[in-house]
Order: sequence, then structure tokens, then C-alpha cells
Amino acid sequence: MKVRAVIKLKAGVLDPQGEAIRHALGTLGFDGIEDVRQGKIIELVLAEPDAQRAEAEVQQMCEALLANTVIESYEVELP
Amino acid sequence: MKVRAVIKLKAGVLDPQGEAIRHALGTLGFDGIEDVRQGKIIELVLAEPDAQRAEAEVQQMCEALLANTVIESYEVELP
Repeated sequence: MKVRAVIKLKAGVLDPQGEAIRHALGTLGFDGIEDVRQGKIIELVLAEPDAQRAEAEVQQMCEALLANTVIESYEVELP
Repeated sequence: MKVRAVIKLKAGVLDPQGEAIRHALGTLGFDGIEDVRQGKIIELVLAEPDAQRAEAEVQQMCEALLANTVIESYEVELP
């Protein structure tokens, strides 16, 4: 079972890397960029065949290790 | 228009960070993890209101800056 965890900085948390990307894109001639936020994606292949249980397991992994829940939020997706 | 670029290492490219995550999850007691791959996600808010044109623009951004197409593949998603 393939599960994807998307980890992003919470709204309001400063994202200097996103800001740097926005600036770099501007210098390359890309206009009209209002905001850029960078995050992480972690794709896991689990032995668990049940989608709901796999999703719950990845949610636990995010809480325990993958995300810093003070400044990051996460979503678990089944692609 | 919100557009999301998902940038992953190509299949076959070694992912030591993913391997480290897998190991760390194992020590925390999470079993049955067959594979872990880590990637980046870049969320852009563009002034462009047309979805198709926004998607094409982000594709150009990926080619020009966001992805290293030698070792990384990217997907552009409209969330």
C-alpha cells in the first residue's frame, strides 16, 4: 500500500526557502508569483494492505517522527 | 491560482534520506515498511487565473529552476 505524507510549514510560520525560490524565479523572468511555500513529501510503501489502517499508521508516523507539529502541519494522502 | 509542484528523485536514484527515515521509523517500532522516498513540494500562488496556463508556467519553472531533471522528476498538480 502506497501512502504519501505531505508536510508543510503552518500558515504564519516564516518560510525563507520559499521566499528565496520566489526571488530566484523573479530573476529568471517569471512574473505574477504571489506566494511560494516549500514543504516535504514522504512516500511510503507499507506491507499493510488495508487503506484505512495504512493511513492511520502514517498519521502516527507523522506525529512521532516525520513532522514537527509545533511549526508544521501534515496531510496523509492515498495516491 | 494555486499550483503545486511535486519533485521526487527518479526511480533508481539512491535516496539516503528516505533510507534514514525508514531506519528511524523501524527503531520507533513501526514495522512493515517496504520503502520510503523523500521529495519536495513547492506550492505556488500565481496571479494567472487560467488553470491550464498556470500549470504550463509551473512546468517551465520546474525545468528552469525547481527540479534537477538529471536526477529528479516532477509533477504539476492543481489542488
